[in-house]
Amino acid sequence: MAKELKDLTKRAENYSQWYNELVVKADLAEQSAVRGCMVIKPYGYAIWEKMQQTLDKMFKQTGVQNAYFPLLIPKSFLCREAEHVEGFAKECAVVTHYRLKNDPNGNGVVVDPAARLEEELIIRPTSETIIWGTYKNWIHSYRDLPLLCNQWANVMRWEMRTRMFLRTAEFLWQEGHCAHATAEESEARTVQMINLYAEFAEKYMAMPVIKGVKTANERFAGALNTYTIEAMMQDGKALQSGTSHNLGQNFAKAFDVTFVNKDNQQEYVWANSWGVSTRLMGALIMTHSDDNGLVLPPYLAPIQVVIVPIYKNEEQLNAINEKVQPIVERFNEMGISVKYDNADNKRPGFKFADYELKGIPVRLVIGARDIENGTVEVMRRDTLEKETLPLDNIENTVNKLLGDIQNNIFQKALKLRESKTYIVDSYDEFKQRIEDGGFVLAHWDGTTETEERIKEETKATIRCIPLDGDSTPGTCIFTGKPSKQRVIFARNY
Amino acid sequence: MAKELKDLTKRAENYSQWYNELVVKADLAEQSAVRGCMVIKPYGYAIWEKMQQTLDKMFKQTGVQNAYFPLLIPKSFLCREAEHVEGFAKECAVVTHYRLKNDPNGNGVVVDPAARLEEELIIRPTSETIIWGTYKNWIHSYRDLPLLCNQWANVMRWEMRTRMFLRTAEFLWQEGHCAHATAEESEARTVQMINLYAEFAEKYMAMPVIKGVKTANERFAGALNTYTIEAMMQDGKALQSGTSHNLGQNFAKAFDVTFVNKDNQQEYVWANSWGVSTRLMGALIMTHSDDNGLVLPPYLAPIQVVIVPIYKNEEQLNAINEKVQPIVERFNEMGISVKYDNADNKRPGFKFADYELKGIPVRLVIGARDIENGTVEVMRRDTLEKETLPLDNIENTVNKLLGDIQNNIFQKALKLRESKTYIVDSYDEFKQRIEDGGFVLAHWDGTTETEERIKEETKATIRCIPLDGDSTPGTCIFTGKPSKQRVIFARNY
Repeated sequence: MAKELKDLTKRAENYSQWYNELVVKADLAEQSAVRGCMVIKPYGYAIWEKMQQTLDKMFKQTGVQNAYFPLLIPKSFLCREAEHVEGFAKECAVVTHYRLKNDPNGNGVVVDPAARLEEELIIRPTSETIIWGTYKNWIHSYRDLPLLCNQWANVMRWEMRTRMFLRTAEFLWQEGHCAHATAEESEARTVQMINLYAEFAEKYMAMPVIKGVKTANERFAGALNTYTIEAMMQDGKALQSGTSHNLGQNFAKAFDVTFVNKDNQQEYVWANSWGVSTRLMGALIMTHSDDNGLVLPPYLAPIQVVIVPIYKNEEQLNAINEKVQPIVERFNEMGISVKYDNADNKRPGFKFADYELKGIPVRLVIGARDIENGTVEVMRRDTLEKETLPLDNIENTVNKLLGDIQNNIFQKALKLRESKTYIVDSYDEFKQRIEDGGFVLAHWDGTTETEERIKEETKATIRCIPLDGDSTPGTCIFTGKPSKQRVIFARNY
Repeated sequence: MAKELKDLTKRAENYSQWYNELVVKADLAEQSAVRGCMVIKPYGYAIWEKMQQTLDKMFKQTGVQNAYFPLLIPKSFLCREAEHVEGFAKECAVVTHYRLKNDPNGNGVVVDPAARLEEELIIRPTSETIIWGTYKNWIHSYRDLPLLCNQWANVMRWEMRTRMFLRTAEFLWQEGHCAHATAEESEARTVQMINLYAEFAEKYMAMPVIKGVKTANERFAGALNTYTIEAMMQDGKALQSGTSHNLGQNFAKAFDVTFVNKDNQQEYVWANSWGVSTRLMGALIMTHSDDNGLVLPPYLAPIQVVIVPIYKNEEQLNAINEKVQPIVERFNEMGISVKYDNADNKRPGFKFADYELKGIPVRLVIGARDIENGTVEVMRRDTLEKETLPLDNIENTVNKLLGDIQNNIFQKALKLRESKTYIVDSYDEFKQRIEDGGFVLAHWDGTTETEERIKEETKATIRCIPLDGDSTPGTCIFTGKPSKQRVIFARNY
């Protein structure tokens, strides 16, 4: 059984297969009976809940309130903002009927043709349209602004090729929708939220990200500007991990949302929206995990410490139980989540493999000899290093170790990214670097045409124009035309 | 403006209209552009979040874990459990297509007829079928049991007559789905959850409830037995506030979910499910609120205390600000949520009316004279009583007062229920009591036929067979046939 748990494809063999297997073997998620939709299993959901709680607190600290808007959107709403419908409306789940009836032929139930909706409803792929349709009633005066709402919700996009967490037909996310009195305020909020996402990614997920702006081609449908955070996975591919869109007055105009300003003049409202999704679970898994399974940052691990007893008889187990109980209590008091696994229906070897696979950051093993010596074996999941340490004051030792692990996996991911980031000035080298995997900093002439030709030839896209990047001008790697600054090219998830 | 806020229909005039207006005026929810679907506004959502957080913690303390299952259910799944499809499948949102395309006539977008699903998908009205379809893969041995999952989700039932929170096409809820090795364990969990709901309703919502069993006629489709908690609204009508269903082996048989027991024999798994929804928001509003607006139990109020300054000039305001700041900090330290509203764009009268309407449990008003005298005016929302009290130690005074309010509104609701609960032995009195509104404890012969005839004639349904009720036998109020015990009849929401 322990062997089966460990029977995980190696990253070097097949990174993609390693990921797919790990998601299932670590009990994070699985395919459902509905094409492209996944079931998020309790262990995976517990990680997502930790992300949610952390983000929700961060949002609220900036004045954002939660609300809830309808799942279904009238078809006509999607057409109100012209660019938006081009970008979103096509691949989506369409509700056309509201009733089933018994099959006259006796084969279960069939759709009742008499219950056809006058106007079809779409399962939200994103909620700008329904929310701005609602904001029309909420916003009248500058006193009603800013309006800072977020919702935690499920959304649906009928993706053809799906992968668990990374691209699923239904996924969970949060979408913030803010309304402001001025363009400046709205831009400031757009930037504030991408900064917040970057802080969350780096501090809690231990995942280094690059903040940047999307090119016109990669922008959200209907946005003036899209900010992004881009992370590098271990295979050198990019994963877009969060976006924040400055929507200008496009949705206000489409839904006629105006306000009376302090000078008593009618103006259109300024909008932005921003979101992260269960895709972050994919990013988390691929950033840190290894050939033994999941590696979780301590801040997001549902179980931070597991304690496993090793015993030959009940007497020994009782002695260990007695010693461990007060330690468990002290962990609880410190807010460290701990599991004492003294279940006797699984062997220690099985437990070790399972907790490694599940990425529990710290494992303590206590045997009869340890009780005698006042020691405990401590293993850290990130390096798999074991040490025998005094049992005395173990909770503080572990607390410090959790901080070390959080920091270490961030540094490790950062080093990987740095080692696979290349400044490139020739198209030949560009093609090779892209083929090998990594971020390529290259000059680009600023045209969509060049961007698309490079994509066709190399499958690399412009991930972003980095905010903190070198802004020295140069010449385009593909056309030789002038370039304002280097941008980041990579293949991506 | 303050007048407009107060312009609320009185309960005695039209209870139903009072409710509908209050939901909108107190900024809890509003109708959306989609028939029967509501928008839950930030203030309403903040109350729901407090309910969620409290319930979630209570569930987890009993070993329940959260997970997430797909929104869409294949049509064929609904037919697997015969009674279930009869009770649920009919009025629901049906997804038939997965793509839109540009209208060839240039009028926006139309459904792409080429993108018809082979099998229609139903937006979940409840998730027993998809979850038991999944559990088949999760449960193999007695070691996999019990499996205790919950999900927080949106569900959809195509209701014809909708009312905000009470009956909406889309609503938010939690649904717990447990799998057990024995009938006894499953029954014990079913009862445990109805007890948990009753504790939540009484302790946090300050809403007294009667625990009971549903008649066969009112049972969940596919259940052996349904437990319920029933609350009385101020008009004497009942509101079913939570249910817990013992599903026996029905879903295990329908989805072929078996396990190998300790004796190495294959058995079907035992199931239960239990849920509460945003309907609880309706129950909360109708139980406590009055002609001045919302009355919230302190445990669930997003803002528990509001402080309003009264001042003639900036100097006075500064003096008040200085005095209030440390008080706000002490409230925060005690975990009491407080809002200091010194905004100068609204007059105190407007603020008073607004906070009354929104049901903030305690209001403190501080003027220049109070600063001199070291006093503050304290108003409690439940009784609207005002008192001038020392500013010294005000946070402890308020803390105690919050506890008093929580207790007082529970007692008030309990007294109302007691005053409108009648033991009735004649059908004439029965009809009168039902017409006047209230719970009628009467004998019933145990047949669905009698139950339905009484419903036709009086619009009263059997809310439950109370668990803690008088179990003395008698004769049916309608047929004169023998009755095992009195049951509760009422009209209901």
